[in-house]
Amino acid sequence: MSALRPQAEGEAAPGPPRHSGELGSTQASTRLLAYSDALLSIIATVMILPVAHTKIHPDQKLGESIQQLLLMKIAVYLMTFLIVTVAWAAHIRLFQVIELIDDVLALLNLACMMLITFLPYTFSLMASFPGVPFGIFMFSTCAIVIGLIQAVIVAYGFYHPYLLNHQIQMSENQAFYKHHILQIILRGPVLCFLAAVFSFFFIPMSYVLLGLVIFLPHITRLIIWCKNKTGGPEEEEERHRLEAFTFYLNEPLSKERVEAFSDGVYAIVATLLILDICEDNVPDSKEVKDRFHDRLIEALSEYGPNFLAYFASFVTTGLLWFVHHSLFLYITKTTRFMGLLNTFSLAFIGGLPLGYQLTSEFAEKSHNEIEAIQVSCVITFFASIFQFAIWITALFHERETLHPLARYGGKEHAFMFAKLALYPCVSLGAFFLTCLLSKFSTAIFHIMQIVVPFAFLALRILVRISLAIMKSVLSLSRRKNVVLDEEETCLSPAETLS
Amino acid sequence: MSALRPQAEGEAAPGPPRHSGELGSTQASTRLLAYSDALLSIIATVMILPVAHTKIHPDQKLGESIQQLLLMKIAVYLMTFLIVTVAWAAHIRLFQVIELIDDVLALLNLACMMLITFLPYTFSLMASFPGVPFGIFMFSTCAIVIGLIQAVIVAYGFYHPYLLNHQIQMSENQAFYKHHILQIILRGPVLCFLAAVFSFFFIPMSYVLLGLVIFLPHITRLIIWCKNKTGGPEEEEERHRLEAFTFYLNEPLSKERVEAFSDGVYAIVATLLILDICEDNVPDSKEVKDRFHDRLIEALSEYGPNFLAYFASFVTTGLLWFVHHSLFLYITKTTRFMGLLNTFSLAFIGGLPLGYQLTSEFAEKSHNEIEAIQVSCVITFFASIFQFAIWITALFHERETLHPLARYGGKEHAFMFAKLALYPCVSLGAFFLTCLLSKFSTAIFHIMQIVVPFAFLALRILVRISLAIMKSVLSLSRRKNVVLDEEETCLSPAETLS
Repeated sequence: MSALRPQAEGEAAPGPPRHSGELGSTQASTRLLAYSDALLSIIATVMILPVAHTKIHPDQKLGESIQQLLLMKIAVYLMTFLIVTVAWAAHIRLFQVIELIDDVLALLNLACMMLITFLPYTFSLMASFPGVPFGIFMFSTCAIVIGLIQAVIVAYGFYHPYLLNHQIQMSENQAFYKHHILQIILRGPVLCFLAAVFSFFFIPMSYVLLGLVIFLPHITRLIIWCKNKTGGPEEEEERHRLEAFTFYLNEPLSKERVEAFSDGVYAIVATLLILDICEDNVPDSKEVKDRFHDRLIEALSEYGPNFLAYFASFVTTGLLWFVHHSLFLYITKTTRFMGLLNTFSLAFIGGLPLGYQLTSEFAEKSHNEIEAIQVSCVITFFASIFQFAIWITALFHERETLHPLARYGGKEHAFMFAKLALYPCVSLGAFFLTCLLSKFSTAIFHIMQIVVPFAFLALRILVRISLAIMKSVLSLSRRKNVVLDEEETCLSPAETLS
Repeated sequence: MSALRPQAEGEAAPGPPRHSGELGSTQASTRLLAYSDALLSIIATVMILPVAHTKIHPDQKLGESIQQLLLMKIAVYLMTFLIVTVAWAAHIRLFQVIELIDDVLALLNLACMMLITFLPYTFSLMASFPGVPFGIFMFSTCAIVIGLIQAVIVAYGFYHPYLLNHQIQMSENQAFYKHHILQIILRGPVLCFLAAVFSFFFIPMSYVLLGLVIFLPHITRLIIWCKNKTGGPEEEEERHRLEAFTFYLNEPLSKERVEAFSDGVYAIVATLLILDICEDNVPDSKEVKDRFHDRLIEALSEYGPNFLAYFASFVTTGLLWFVHHSLFLYITKTTRFMGLLNTFSLAFIGGLPLGYQLTSEFAEKSHNEIEAIQVSCVITFFASIFQFAIWITALFHERETLHPLARYGGKEHAFMFAKLALYPCVSLGAFFLTCLLSKFSTAIFHIMQIVVPFAFLALRILVRISLAIMKSVLSLSRRKNVVLDEEETCLSPAETLS
């Protein structure tokens, strides 16, 4: 895409000539969007660090400590993740309307990003002081300002129509579009304003209103769906053309932006781990002198479990990225529902540093060790099962959403299925092993994690062999029925050819 | 680019038909490269955190503490940044040879990334225990394994030639290419092996060898340059076709990957700040009760300077990204030298969290305050002056590297110049103000930083006005000389038209 950018402005551009703006020359928004995706994915994920860094005393029982200490921080993490993904979805919608940017829009977008990155702090305040209105007030203020900036962006876009989506640019009733989009954007700030007002005399109401902001799109969707069910499908033309700006669950979502956002989450999770290693596991030079008589290797061998945990977590993150990458390679269209499942998967991916911290902290401390492994398994299981759910969803509408190779009967179908089923199976298996085997330890768990990539390669060979067997069985049966039903064998050319 | 991906594999692909691999179907490498860029940029930048988190006692003098405490950690940061950018450049080179990937290559690449992310830890060890061989030994081992994995990737690529660059695929002497590329890749591991051996009996030699690994490409370049000077330009054909795999300084560098790497650095710097805010600046509920009688706002007003510092730092990071974005919008080709300047700029961008930490820590503590502001100014100055240097470099070969609009005499030239000169001027100005005004405080500094975006908008209006004045002056002089020299006025059509 970015290779197209130099041509997108200026006189030498092939294709439709681009207007040169009043204040500055216009630009394709690709890199601005990529940067916004990176910012949002990092901010969504980085809030796991306060959770992972919660100090738990080794003699405390993990079961209790999780309930007492972590629950609040996990709530902050999940709220942040949710609100950031909502803001991200709104951002996608906004820049589906505005396709070209200029300097003013770039600066307005940065201002918007600055306020979004500040939201996690207001959540921390809310979680620490649930009964004090100030946290809600601060959050609402930020959300209102974000909404207003977005409204300014839309207004600016409609004032300079050459920045807009081609479809809207060509439309006759731009005023209607503008009105409709502004209405959608300003719903949030209005609710936040009410929440801020309520926060001073009836706090629970504010929380309900803030919850509404998050789930509003889905509620709207439900209402429209109910209306259609009761009143029959009303064929209002304008509504159908507005599809891109409302929230139909099977409406297309920009696949590139879903990938960019996901990559950001996976990358930050993989690198947060080494930060912990570098801060916690460099031995103190004085301690090495006194306790280990200057023998550094001995001092480092104490951290052995941490290194093992690091490599195991990196392998898990990397392979889950790899599965995601393979999956999205064959997905040709992402619907909103798939985006929602992807968000859930990413929220658990963001939880992996917690799993790393727990398993490395409680290695060799038997009474918490099993619980730590189980938490890790649960996180991995949910992260991978939501990926699997994306695949199942894609299969339901395979003609629209999947590449022919991955469809039922396609050459890659069986292997994709096996790839996506691997991690749910492995994590479930490990979970049950912890229940059955009393000798199960973090070391075994980490080695299991590190061995998984070889399972991927073994899988492909297995799938290949089983396909070869199926093929030979098929060809045997074909020889028998070659005259009887020639048509049936033609149905699965991909399988017989491969 | 990624929109092209679904077509890049499978039978329905338009254009040249793609081979289907032995082990798996091949894929365009775009997303793998984007993910690698994200990982590498984050790992390069995140190592500033141990520097920024160094605890400095408020009564300690900052001048001394910097020397004592920070110098070692800054060295680790810079070494990490340098080695990661070297690894990144090698990664670019590698995937210029191999253009398509399959599952095996994706997994090998992830293994490579895992080891690269582990390098910062070995640096921490080296910096903490400079006299112990183990740190060097660990680093060398990692580097050797990385080199071997890369060699395996190359060998795998040449074993499946459909994965290779089209040019090499068509070439007659593939064996020569393979030999040459493997030779370049394995130089590093051989030196590292020597360093590991020397580390056991003569440590300084190991450091020299490790330094060689980093600067080897530049040394090679120098040697070739000297050879050409002394022996005259030898017109060896094969050497010219190998250009892409050696290190000519003005050789093209993938612009998309430079942008992706830069975006990662800017994004992580912008978001690391809020992490500090969330971890340090949420008041303890007990303290609020005891000291502030449950008045949260009073407790928070203590953190006022931190919030101001946060917004100021975000604005600075965001605007430096904006300048970078504007600059690369008009750059059509990035040379290696521009990439080098960009790396220097990014290394200082990565230092911004340190500036934030210092200015927010030492607000209102007068004897360190000025020093903290000066450190911030120096970091900002170098980050922006290297951006300016990229622009100057691009201007030297403007026909090849710049879009017509930004060339000398182009419509956007004056404004680009002003944009790039703004931050060096502002940071220099702030630095001198700290020397002149005894009343200068962090609060004033932060407000200055926040006001800069408006300066950008003002700049454009200023440039516009001055261009308008120039135009009228020109048209006046044209009227006088219209018969005398019609040719001269035609030389600058862009300026007179706008």
